[in-house]
Amino acid sequence: MEKIDIVPGTKYRIIQNKEMFSYGIDAILLSDFAKARGIVIDLGTGTGIIPLRLSDNEDIDKIFGIEIQKEVADMAQRNVDLNNLNDKIEIWNMDLKELPEKLEKGSIDTIITNPPYMKSGGAVINNRENFAISRHEIKTSLEDIVKTSSFLLKQLGKLYIVHRPNRLVDVLCSLRENGIEPKYIKWVYPKKDKPANLFLLEAIKGAKRDFKYRKPLIVYRDDGEYTDDLLQIYDRER
Amino acid sequence: MEKIDIVPGTKYRIIQNKEMFSYGIDAILLSDFAKARGIVIDLGTGTGIIPLRLSDNEDIDKIFGIEIQKEVADMAQRNVDLNNLNDKIEIWNMDLKELPEKLEKGSIDTIITNPPYMKSGGAVINNRENFAISRHEIKTSLEDIVKTSSFLLKQLGKLYIVHRPNRLVDVLCSLRENGIEPKYIKWVYPKKDKPANLFLLEAIKGAKRDFKYRKPLIVYRDDGEYTDDLLQIYDRER
Repeated sequence: MEKIDIVPGTKYRIIQNKEMFSYGIDAILLSDFAKARGIVIDLGTGTGIIPLRLSDNEDIDKIFGIEIQKEVADMAQRNVDLNNLNDKIEIWNMDLKELPEKLEKGSIDTIITNPPYMKSGGAVINNRENFAISRHEIKTSLEDIVKTSSFLLKQLGKLYIVHRPNRLVDVLCSLRENGIEPKYIKWVYPKKDKPANLFLLEAIKGAKRDFKYRKPLIVYRDDGEYTDDLLQIYDRER
Repeated sequence: MEKIDIVPGTKYRIIQNKEMFSYGIDAILLSDFAKARGIVIDLGTGTGIIPLRLSDNEDIDKIFGIEIQKEVADMAQRNVDLNNLNDKIEIWNMDLKELPEKLEKGSIDTIITNPPYMKSGGAVINNRENFAISRHEIKTSLEDIVKTSSFLLKQLGKLYIVHRPNRLVDVLCSLRENGIEPKYIKWVYPKKDKPANLFLLEAIKGAKRDFKYRKPLIVYRDDGEYTDDLLQIYDRER
């Protein structure tokens, strides 16, 4: 069943359908972390949460949201229409691996991606197909995303990715191998004394090796309420 | 000036000379973290602190401490003699890059290394030569250590390394590229709310990709005293 929510931190609205696809905190944190500018591509845009979150950013000329699943891309397009953002956002329903046929090499300033976290082999796959494709590397692997990004990004163009800590080595090494040097990492902790459950990474095409840590983000206080840092990202008052 | 200290957590003694070389907390944490067994090599042994710390471990048959600096290797040898550990520990004064000429490929069970942390180019280098060689990648680079380790380690042989967080990408990617898969990381924090200043890593030759986090170590309590976890490693009571 569909309902309409407000996109956190904006005046825009987003159609949600919990049976098919709904965005997570990861997308909100990533769009906050990313210093996007120029021509921006969101690889695996889902229902367009990241383009919607970024659409008031005046440093951005245009945002392309790429989504392989037809039904999900249709929802993203309806979200763009609903908010009259067709001048700023274009939704492309296609396989991101085919982007190099549509766009010039080195033409993109910023790439943002909240990819499927889990490898497709092995573990239980969610039995609803849309969820499975969004969460597991069925149609898109990390390697596809990084290779496509390496083709599309300008020299010193930036890539922003959110991923799970157990994929840290895969993410860092795949980026470096493909000439997009990992530069800044921000760890996300559910609570102060719990292990990190996400990381946010900025990598820069052709940059020199120099790896730094941003201040970590803690999501919940000890009393179970959101931290001030988290509320600020969601633009909410306590 | 030389003085004799107790090797933390053991009954052994170690000659220290603060003007030339003295071990740090890193070596103690690394020797605690490492699950060493069989034939063990300590690459860049300094004055032998890691072999001395491990010499009571009955899973270990023999420990070779490799040290390129003649004066420092001589102190390591005097430390082995002082403690009558010549049956368990051999100190080799040589360049670790030449180990493949002396040892068979795939002959080593465990490699431990507390390498120079800093790149040799650029930044100020400590003007005392021994310190400089121990701390900067002048005679030995990370790449040399990893390539030599890859040659020496058995299939499923283990490598334990301590390094600084700003070299994380270099360490992880160099290991993976050379077939020694990073498996477990343990972050070391000076205090609960300070950024990590070291990490300890276990990597396994030829292992499958599966990266996990050990419980982090915090060195100091808020009141400036050592934490219980740290005291336990040093085998001291409060």
